Amino acid sequence: MPAESRAIVQHGPRDLRAERFPLPTIARDDALLRIEACGICGSDYEQYEGALPVRFPVIPGHEPLGVIEEIGEDAARRWRVRKGDRVAVEALLACGFCRECVQGRFGQCRGTGRGGLSAFGYRPVSEPPALWGGFAEYLYLPPHARLHPMSKDVPAELAVLFNPIGAGFRWCVDVPKLRVGESVAVLGPGQRGLACVIAAREAGAGMVAVTGLSRDEHKLALAREFGADATIVVEREDVVTRVRELTGGAGADVVVDVTAYAVEAVTQAVDLARRGGRVVLGGTKGPKPVPDFLSDRVVTKELTIYGVLGVDWPAYDAAVRLIEKGTYPLAKMHTHTLPLDDAERGLALLAGNVPGEHAVHVALIP
Amino acid sequence: MPAESRAIVQHGPRDLRAERFPLPTIARDDALLRIEACGICGSDYEQYEGALPVRFPVIPGHEPLGVIEEIGEDAARRWRVRKGDRVAVEALLACGFCRECVQGRFGQCRGTGRGGLSAFGYRPVSEPPALWGGFAEYLYLPPHARLHPMSKDVPAELAVLFNPIGAGFRWCVDVPKLRVGESVAVLGPGQRGLACVIAAREAGAGMVAVTGLSRDEHKLALAREFGADATIVVEREDVVTRVRELTGGAGADVVVDVTAYAVEAVTQAVDLARRGGRVVLGGTKGPKPVPDFLSDRVVTKELTIYGVLGVDWPAYDAAVRLIEKGTYPLAKMHTHTLPLDDAERGLALLAGNVPGEHAVHVALIP
Amino acid sequence: MPAESRAIVQHGPRDLRAERFPLPTIARDDALLRIEACGICGSDYEQYEGALPVRFPVIPGHEPLGVIEEIGEDAARRWRVRKGDRVAVEALLACGFCRECVQGRFGQCRGTGRGGLSAFGYRPVSEPPALWGGFAEYLYLPPHARLHPMSKDVPAELAVLFNPIGAGFRWCVDVPKLRVGESVAVLGPGQRGLACVIAAREAGAGMVAVTGLSRDEHKLALAREFGADATIVVEREDVVTRVRELTGGAGADVVVDVTAYAVEAVTQAVDLARRGGRVVLGGTKGPKPVPDFLSDRVVTKELTIYGVLGVDWPAYDAAVRLIEKGTYPLAKMHTHTLPLDDAERGLALLAGNVPGEHAVHVALIP
Amino acid sequence: MPAESRAIVQHGPRDLRAERFPLPTIARDDALLRIEACGICGSDYEQYEGALPVRFPVIPGHEPLGVIEEIGEDAARRWRVRKGDRVAVEALLACGFCRECVQGRFGQCRGTGRGGLSAFGYRPVSEPPALWGGFAEYLYLPPHARLHPMSKDVPAELAVLFNPIGAGFRWCVDVPKLRVGESVAVLGPGQRGLACVIAAREAGAGMVAVTGLSRDEHKLALAREFGADATIVVEREDVVTRVRELTGGAGADVVVDVTAYAVEAVTQAVDLARRGGRVVLGGTKGPKPVPDFLSDRVVTKELTIYGVLGVDWPAYDAAVRLIEKGTYPLAKMHTHTLPLDDAERGLALLAGNVPGEHAVHVALIP
Repeated sequence: MPAESRAIVQHGPRDLRAERFPLPTIARDDALLRIEACGICGSDYEQYEGALPVRFPVIPGHEPLGVIEEIGEDAARRWRVRKGDRVAVEALLACGFCRECVQGRFGQCRGTGRGGLSAFGYRPVSEPPALWGGFAEYLYLPPHARLHPMSKDVPAELAVLFNPIGAGFRWCVDVPKLRVGESVAVLGPGQRGLACVIAAREAGAGMVAVTGLSRDEHKLALAREFGADATIVVEREDVVTRVRELTGGAGADVVVDVTAYAVEAVTQAVDLARRGGRVVLGGTKGPKPVPDFLSDRVVTKELTIYGVLGVDWPAYDAAVRLIEKGTYPLAKMHTHTLPLDDAERGLALLAGNVPGEHAVHVALIP
Repeated sequence: MPAESRAIVQHGPRDLRAERFPLPTIARDDALLRIEACGICGSDYEQYEGALPVRFPVIPGHEPLGVIEEIGEDAARRWRVRKGDRVAVEALLACGFCRECVQGRFGQCRGTGRGGLSAFGYRPVSEPPALWGGFAEYLYLPPHARLHPMSKDVPAELAVLFNPIGAGFRWCVDVPKLRVGESVAVLGPGQRGLACVIAAREAGAGMVAVTGLSRDEHKLALAREFGADATIVVEREDVVTRVRELTGGAGADVVVDVTAYAVEAVTQAVDLARRGGRVVLGGTKGPKPVPDFLSDRVVTKELTIYGVLGVDWPAYDAAVRLIEKGTYPLAKMHTHTLPLDDAERGLALLAGNVPGEHAVHVALIP
Repeated sequence: MPAESRAIVQHGPRDLRAERFPLPTIARDDALLRIEACGICGSDYEQYEGALPVRFPVIPGHEPLGVIEEIGEDAARRWRVRKGDRVAVEALLACGFCRECVQGRFGQCRGTGRGGLSAFGYRPVSEPPALWGGFAEYLYLPPHARLHPMSKDVPAELAVLFNPIGAGFRWCVDVPKLRVGESVAVLGPGQRGLACVIAAREAGAGMVAVTGLSRDEHKLALAREFGADATIVVEREDVVTRVRELTGGAGADVVVDVTAYAVEAVTQAVDLARRGGRVVLGGTKGPKPVPDFLSDRVVTKELTIYGVLGVDWPAYDAAVRLIEKGTYPLAKMHTHTLPLDDAERGLALLAGNVPGEHAVHVALIP
Repeated sequence: MPAESRAIVQHGPRDLRAERFPLPTIARDDALLRIEACGICGSDYEQYEGALPVRFPVIPGHEPLGVIEEIGEDAARRWRVRKGDRVAVEALLACGFCRECVQGRFGQCRGTGRGGLSAFGYRPVSEPPALWGGFAEYLYLPPHARLHPMSKDVPAELAVLFNPIGAGFRWCVDVPKLRVGESVAVLGPGQRGLACVIAAREAGAGMVAVTGLSRDEHKLALAREFGADATIVVEREDVVTRVRELTGGAGADVVVDVTAYAVEAVTQAVDLARRGGRVVLGGTKGPKPVPDFLSDRVVTKELTIYGVLGVDWPAYDAAVRLIEKGTYPLAKMHTHTLPLDDAERGLALLAGNVPGEHAVHVALIP
């Protein structure tokens, strides 16, 4: 074990720098993770651009996977893991003590977040021991970190898909209480959209449709391969008409919006849902207001709209089990593996800003 | 029993005419109601103005209360009521056979509505036997009408409050699953807002706050009398700041918007809810888009938003029981009783369009 | 169309007689079904023996499938079916009007049942038009019958599996709110137990185990073929120990008892469930008390126990879709097809009372 | 502050001894509570008798209330309390790390319980710093203790009622999802039964009935004073008949059994519930099997049975708010205040074993 960890540190919008931090001393109830891979999330790009309220300097990366390098005896007993075990690490750093945490609403914890989100990749390096982000060789695991052991048989760059697939399970299945046979419309064919298709299939959904842009054709093809019954290119077809046809005129039971920036998708989601249907909003749009949002459509159709941001334990667990089973061709979803020093390129790839490249899932391997 | 029923018929926007219709023949499975009173709802005014998609000519009025004048033997057995019983009649006319009805989602029935809402007050006189509205002396009760027996000890103009109070129970308690001790913010102090205060109190809510305009001062005073802990005049105070103070900084567990037309209340409702809180949208706004609707606020706070339009059986039942108990000074909420011929004035009163009058609840007594 | 329908009539315990009834006149809102097949349920055998409170004489059979032979125009519009359509018919005959029905709790309807269950196969021939049972050539469909159109591509004896498979979806998935990845123990490998395996698989269950007797070996083999991870012969293994091993020591998230008569399975179900787990009781036992039922085990493990009897619309719908998809080798589950006159033998086969025969699913084809 | 704490230590069945323990050193993330009062629970008597699996020697008492005597800075920040604050302490000692805790199912935690329940009053004195029970002058508060600040205006012996009243809210309202207007039958008029009456009233229940023995007449009178509509002496009336009368023939929507030892109450609870009703089992019976438990009654009525053992955060919170409001004459429920040294007598009083005394709620005041 070296004495230091390399890490990519963000000092401000579009300002990433490779730096080194000393490895922390591990006591009884914490641990150190040697990172095998860290997935790149759409929100990582927003953070990179400066669109999120993050305290700099910070090590980005909230989708870490790795091997326990060192662990205290209390932590080992509590988490039931040992040195050498591979674990997927949950993004969220819930404090465990606040009014929300004691009610089990960890996703709403604000105990340690000082008003903002408390998660790996968001806590600044000024808080010891600095190693709070996944774009690094090592990650500090505090006592309330949440770990999911995962088989080492899965290649790291696929194992790290536990994060988007976990979101698929929570956003498309658990939160909207998807029932067997119900119809689903997924807006956006990115990694989270594809994860929704997988989760919907696993949960026994009926018709599953996915929308995308014409430049997303490769992603829509993947959606079909993962089990979508229909894909809809929004420039070519009227989405509402098509979804109505696909659902016998009723509209979709569940609509999940995982598009980034596309505010009109919110209005569309409301229009696509059947009377009494459920809309899940998982895509962040930044400070752009939704145009033509007619609240009467929510009222007269008696819709339920769920805002979702994080992933919880059961959903991560379902994701880890699915990846270990190996029943989906997840390798087709993973498009790019890059070293730490190419973090900036990884972010650009995921954002679709590298001409000629069709990225779906991108992982950094230290 | 006369041979005819007088009724107020709407032939188009702002076109009400008093007319007469022959009373129908009652067979084995239907009944005739002699109307004692019919409440006026905010949506009646929207219908009057022509803002709702209604097929004319139609007898308005979907909040009827009355006495069974004639009833078939099958209907009497099924509904467990007899000639002479007083009943509150549910607004909705669910078909009982469509895909929604056989799943118990009666509020989403579109079996008999020909695309629109299937309810008393919305079915045109062209459909026999014409008497489908509460602004009349008699109402036809088809086999799937839903009746709630009510004590005759309650004055008719108060008994007819079952409708807004039923909405209070469904919208403020049942749909958002209000728990004992939770905080509630009600936007809009009209009859449905006041009903939400009553329902929240009955269900053991903690802090209850109600917002209104300065011209609503008499309604806000009533809200306090019915148990609101705080009332907020939106022109004088910053509502978000005040609700945050009232909730220890967290925001309200449940926010219910029952304002009419006020689209900015939707944005405000989102801002007032705590992280993980629930927002209920019950106020209709017409085709005005909500300004500055930032979907990210729904996402990052992981809110749930429920659109609600109708009232269901358990909520109506709770309302009837509450009115019969007589524990709230409901008489203060009922401000105006008018004869059928003054229907137009009744609508203007409820809409706040009669200078010098402060209407809260208005009932027509044939 | 003939003028009469042949039917098997039960006049008392173990007293079945073939008889003829005139076909009814169909009016605007009812219909006549030509029965293609009727499944035999475990409770049919209990009815045959006289263990159920049924008013004789009665035509048994509550799992009918057939083709619309004649239909009134109102019924055709309401149900959206036409003459010649194949439909699966729900067992339950909810009245549509009682306090339970108007709240959508159709399974608890007692409006027309005169205290007992209101279902096809239970209403006596003394109630016109007599044809209320599936062991016949024709079935009367009253206005509130609930129909599910089904493709004619499926052989009738497999199509009629909609009933046990519907139970699988409601009992194993919907009622216990089974989540993706959760572990399931099914007690009893009969047609409903196998249906639970299928439903659990469709809904993304994790580990699925099925228990049976050594004489059920052929059924347990089928369970494995339908996706069970483990089968347990109760005479050979300690079920609690085995299920604990299969679930990492915790016990099953969901336990479904579909054994008939075996009262000790109830105690076992409680022992198999994890802390906070859910137990579904779907097997009827007659008037035998459960031995050694320690309520403290329910209390200290904070279990939830659900009693389930019927199947609802969404579960039947999921079953019909699954059968039409054809992804499971359902033909292996169907073991015996018999003509109407062999109803008595069919009942004996299903009850396991015919030496040398290993029945799983038995259908009567008129 | 003294250097030691007096405590009542149980060394085995019916073996209580007064002893002294040194006060622990408080670090950054824990605290020391000076106990003002500790309520006595029915299970304390079972523990006293040796009926519960407890590791001796142990300081009993899991209903402590007190004042923060010393607190670490991390603990003060996390819990938002300071030295001198009065707090109610939750019984449960969830570990915060196990598979159950990370899903928010704290009541099912077995992380620190070594197989048994992990709660104050159950952890042996052999685990440092020994002061794990409420029958003492001081209580150690470990980092995951759960505290509810409470006003000092309430007398300590009433403030300590937060525990049974919390059970009332969770068992009678939250777990069975009691709706406004629903009917409730409470079996057993002890402190938890009375708390159920209070909780049901707060949550807007309709008819509330309470059963008891003729020797419980004083408790039944209290039940009526707290809002019960009817009380039933089981030796004098047929409970099922009476509850049916009180509920219009249907049976109760929710039945809560909080009787101790009375196994026949479980059977009765099943009989009292309406079709589709909910039964909550909160009374522990020890290893006595329930006689004549016919599972078919659970099946054919489609009942849901919930086992409940503990209380959760929202329910404790509702209890503290209710006590602070002072709207119920709780002083009538509190019958006996005793010093620490009379712990044995306190247990006997609560168990009804002191002739001539009619205890309902008993508190120890060090």
